[in-house]
Amino acid sequence: MSDDRGSVVREYLGSLQDALCGAFERLDGAQQFQRDRWQRGAAAGAAPGALGGNGVTAVLEDGALFERGGVAFSDVQGSKLPPAATARNPGLVGRAYRAMGVSVVMHPRNPCIPTSHMNVRYFSAGDIWWFGGGFDLTPYVVHEEDAVHWHRAAAAACAPFHENLYAHTRKACDEYFFLPHRGEARGLGGIFYDDLNADTPLFAMPWERCFEFMGAVGTQYLRAYGDIVARRSTTTYGERERRYQLYRRGRYVEFNLVFDRGTLFGLQSGGRTDAILMSMPPSVHWSYRSPDAELDARLLPYLTAMRGHDWLGRGG
Amino acid sequence: MSDDRGSVVREYLGSLQDALCGAFERLDGAQQFQRDRWQRGAAAGAAPGALGGNGVTAVLEDGALFERGGVAFSDVQGSKLPPAATARNPGLVGRAYRAMGVSVVMHPRNPCIPTSHMNVRYFSAGDIWWFGGGFDLTPYVVHEEDAVHWHRAAAAACAPFHENLYAHTRKACDEYFFLPHRGEARGLGGIFYDDLNADTPLFAMPWERCFEFMGAVGTQYLRAYGDIVARRSTTTYGERERRYQLYRRGRYVEFNLVFDRGTLFGLQSGGRTDAILMSMPPSVHWSYRSPDAELDARLLPYLTAMRGHDWLGRGG
Repeated sequence: MSDDRGSVVREYLGSLQDALCGAFERLDGAQQFQRDRWQRGAAAGAAPGALGGNGVTAVLEDGALFERGGVAFSDVQGSKLPPAATARNPGLVGRAYRAMGVSVVMHPRNPCIPTSHMNVRYFSAGDIWWFGGGFDLTPYVVHEEDAVHWHRAAAAACAPFHENLYAHTRKACDEYFFLPHRGEARGLGGIFYDDLNADTPLFAMPWERCFEFMGAVGTQYLRAYGDIVARRSTTTYGERERRYQLYRRGRYVEFNLVFDRGTLFGLQSGGRTDAILMSMPPSVHWSYRSPDAELDARLLPYLTAMRGHDWLGRGG
Repeated sequence: MSDDRGSVVREYLGSLQDALCGAFERLDGAQQFQRDRWQRGAAAGAAPGALGGNGVTAVLEDGALFERGGVAFSDVQGSKLPPAATARNPGLVGRAYRAMGVSVVMHPRNPCIPTSHMNVRYFSAGDIWWFGGGFDLTPYVVHEEDAVHWHRAAAAACAPFHENLYAHTRKACDEYFFLPHRGEARGLGGIFYDDLNADTPLFAMPWERCFEFMGAVGTQYLRAYGDIVARRSTTTYGERERRYQLYRRGRYVEFNLVFDRGTLFGLQSGGRTDAILMSMPPSVHWSYRSPDAELDARLLPYLTAMRGHDWLGRGG
């Protein structure tokens, strides 16, 4: 039974990766994803604590629309579940487990198109299982209709499952994607969830419903981000917006390398470094001062005072 | 007595900052450092655990030789010494303290000129005091005579104080500036020391000698790096070396944001973020694969198999 479920999730994740790569390639029109298939045994000279498993890391670089993007599928087994993998079940730490997921980060070239991130993941340890995932949006030059569109998709992914699921996962997203040393959100948020299973307080759902939610997250992410990329791809920008984007991408690096639990766990456990760091932006610029006070004044309110803003109310 | 010593160190650090900025400005020939003088009380709306103090952050950006560089002086007081500040004296953790230092990171534009880092610092807590510091070199296109010159300067800084001081601090430097997730040293090393005082095993020195060593580190760094910058500034390079430099700078970011104790402590304790991150390179590029296998084959042996290489023996 447990193995059957694993096969079902694996099958879905593979098709999700294909769908994402295909859609982004069509949007880009110029470049294709390079697929790097990998496999390794846990004992094949790997670092202590490293995982056995396999996966496909798909990376698109130097495209027409996408300057860099990655869609990674992985299916790994380990003999000892790390503490970072479960917040609610400390009793599972140290047990044999299997973890599968798809992670996406897309960095468009046009500063008017936001960077987006999506992840869906599934863990099992013996007869215990749980799902996690979410998606969030990081703009450089904000267009409010994109924020509305994004959060409508987030709400639509959650609506069939529980009336409070969007509010709950949206709040968790705002809390997670925050840079305390900057006092800024990473972006406009979205949804974030972890440890979702039949015993979850408030949102307990049988396996099949949790799996359906994983599918809804994947579907809504692809639809909403595809829409935003398509309609924003012709928005014109100048050298000024481009310079500001390169500067703001530094914040993305800071969050992922200093705070992101998945990134840090991967680097510290001997994961495949270049695959883990496919989330890094292609080109980044650091300077002592922001290069553009006016663009700061337009962007920063969304990341500070308006963090948690009700985009659904505004959008109608 | 303790206050007198603090004044003496502060005076020296201020003059060291001036000397470094002046020398680098003369080398650059085009840009000057912008000096940002700051002062803050520990209670002025600062984050919990934040420090009171003052300093001067000097940053040079977009110069002819230096693409970005910073020379920061700070003098801070805190009510509770953080664990990261002392490895050998856990009994001091939590006591009131004063910490002063100068930190330098210079990122040249020419990929044939290495990036360099130097830090000297002085802590006091009641009648206990200790010194720390060091310097290390991060090349992109290696010139062996620069490595020899750099390590001769490191040895010269140490020689007057103890016959084993260079070997000891050089080893500590190799151990500290290492990226385990890449299996690479950050660069060619140099010297690194911490908790140096009259009770240090092997290298116990009275206060005056420790302070003299601080001065020797500053002097030798300035001389050696100045020499390397001057003689390498006319070395020609192409788009290929430049692209490789931007890629390798990603490693510098990874080390500083994931592993460097000083950076992480600063970000987590509510320090001045832009001053802490003056160590970030100006422009950085991440890609899934190295853009240049041949330049990798020339650089990587220095950061892997040759880590700990005896540059003094080679140089004569």
